[in-house]
Amino acid sequence: MGLEEVLKGITQVDGEWIEKARKRTSQLVMPPRALGRLHEISEQLCGIQKTLEPLIERKAFLVMAGDHGVVEEGVSAFPQEVTGEMIKTFLNNGAGINILAGQVNADVFVVDMGIVSELNPATLKGGDRLFIQKVAKGTANLSQGPAMTREEAEKSILTGFQLAADLFNKGIQILGTGDMGIGNTTPSAAIGAVLTGKTVEEMVGRGTGVDDEGLFRKQEAVRKGIEVNQPNREDGLDVLSKLGGFEIGGIAGCVLAGAYHKRPVVIDGFISTAGTLVAHALCPFVTDYLFAGHCSEETGHRLMLEHLGLEPILDLGMRLGEGTGAALAMCIIEGAARIFTDMLTFEEAGVTGKE
Amino acid sequence: MGLEEVLKGITQVDGEWIEKARKRTSQLVMPPRALGRLHEISEQLCGIQKTLEPLIERKAFLVMAGDHGVVEEGVSAFPQEVTGEMIKTFLNNGAGINILAGQVNADVFVVDMGIVSELNPATLKGGDRLFIQKVAKGTANLSQGPAMTREEAEKSILTGFQLAADLFNKGIQILGTGDMGIGNTTPSAAIGAVLTGKTVEEMVGRGTGVDDEGLFRKQEAVRKGIEVNQPNREDGLDVLSKLGGFEIGGIAGCVLAGAYHKRPVVIDGFISTAGTLVAHALCPFVTDYLFAGHCSEETGHRLMLEHLGLEPILDLGMRLGEGTGAALAMCIIEGAARIFTDMLTFEEAGVTGKE
Repeated sequence: MGLEEVLKGITQVDGEWIEKARKRTSQLVMPPRALGRLHEISEQLCGIQKTLEPLIERKAFLVMAGDHGVVEEGVSAFPQEVTGEMIKTFLNNGAGINILAGQVNADVFVVDMGIVSELNPATLKGGDRLFIQKVAKGTANLSQGPAMTREEAEKSILTGFQLAADLFNKGIQILGTGDMGIGNTTPSAAIGAVLTGKTVEEMVGRGTGVDDEGLFRKQEAVRKGIEVNQPNREDGLDVLSKLGGFEIGGIAGCVLAGAYHKRPVVIDGFISTAGTLVAHALCPFVTDYLFAGHCSEETGHRLMLEHLGLEPILDLGMRLGEGTGAALAMCIIEGAARIFTDMLTFEEAGVTGKE
Repeated sequence: MGLEEVLKGITQVDGEWIEKARKRTSQLVMPPRALGRLHEISEQLCGIQKTLEPLIERKAFLVMAGDHGVVEEGVSAFPQEVTGEMIKTFLNNGAGINILAGQVNADVFVVDMGIVSELNPATLKGGDRLFIQKVAKGTANLSQGPAMTREEAEKSILTGFQLAADLFNKGIQILGTGDMGIGNTTPSAAIGAVLTGKTVEEMVGRGTGVDDEGLFRKQEAVRKGIEVNQPNREDGLDVLSKLGGFEIGGIAGCVLAGAYHKRPVVIDGFISTAGTLVAHALCPFVTDYLFAGHCSEETGHRLMLEHLGLEPILDLGMRLGEGTGAALAMCIIEGAARIFTDMLTFEEAGVTGKE
């Protein structure tokens, strides 16, 4: 399927089902809407799935991995080989996302969207959960020119779309997005600055923990990248291709797939939200299908979420990525769904209503 | 055991184990402290339990119920019989707390600390999870005089203490507090105003949903109650006895029991935090053993938490009580513990560290 066809297939969430869901909420045995945000979450699930029995039992994560030419500007505290090493850790069930996804019984799949290392699923423990979909061996340095071609940008989005669509077709009812890629807060900040219209200073943060000089180098890299590339903020594909990266495009594809297939998607932190900004630039209806798992500690994340009109579920000072914030938020989303379906009504419970 | 003995048996959490836990956190395969609040939670668990293998698998809730003479001032939107009806709903597994506690595999026990209705556990479905510990059939009207005697206040605290201690002795590793009692935001606000030193206007909110006139009546009832009773804010027992209620005393007992037995306690919203203020007035060390599950929508809750120096884990606009916010927060606490124990170190994962 081409990108045009995907975008044409996305519609807004049906308000009628949200109304029906609100009516049921009003009958549950508690003061009116006393569980606050949980009601909004469950009603959004009902709207997305067009049902009063929302199902989110079968969960999965797609952790999108990519490498970034911009690391040569000294924008990360970690060396580039860590991207591949962390993928092995994901397959080995030893990373943050494995533990938090495991807590909600979500499967974790990893995608090589374009990392520098060569990994062979056949020889790796857990390799059946690794998809090799290399668009290229890392992006070009965004501060010197385009991170990738327009064709590569489209390919990265469609790859993410197809992988997510496959999971939905196999029965996954809710998808979480995750990321891995040394240096990827830099392209994310660049995309964030362009698509939200905020300044580089507002959008660039310390990522995995660079010092003051590193922060300055990141700001410079982003500033130069925007100047050199002159991305067109009206064109999500142009922004993605010029600023990168492949995993960010893959995440944009996941977000589009949720909206296209009418399944909820929980986005994680700064990098996932940069991918969401790209998807949103292509089709603003995607936010109807999204839950923002958390607000990251990374500078600029809240500004991105505000631009998208998304209210984060959690705010716990996390800044790991991998999908960890989305996984933890799935606990809350699951609680919201259970309240909606399992709580008795005033009538069923035989409890006297408001005077 | 008498209250004096309980208070003497409480010490601060051991900082040495928190330090040991911080060291382990620094070795886990992620940027330094990249999961933010989750690390603070797991390290507090280690400090409380004096271990690097915190265990919170066995969970329970004590939902404390009581009735309140102050309802005759027109402070609630619901009639008093709802307290007993909701207890039946808890035993029937149909209320919010049942569903959210069920999600984290926590048992729910209900305590009649002093409701007006007479319930017979022997004839009720689920009656084995109901403890009848009536201090009296509802408190007196706090706006006219003391809600209870000093002896009743002490009895309500010691009853909560003993029930929680019994659960800990049976192997419960983490306890959540909950409440049920029509009208109980009024005594909670009164206790909150006295013990935090904030004004009645700051502390009194709409509870389950009174209108403007109801809000005014609540403020008046609290104002009169403080004026008539002149509670001594240096004396937690005096404040509890004059402003009530029995379930609030029971919750204070649960909080003291966690600190005494060195087990973590997760407090819920406005009423649970009022109980915590009483416990804290008796022994300030109790906060070392506490997690504030969430920040309620109820006016004044954040001010109570600030007074206690507790940062809420969730902020989802909830205001149901019953323990629902604490139950949902247990997902996060469990995630924090799992990260601490199950995540690989850089060395175990074979991942290159920071440059």
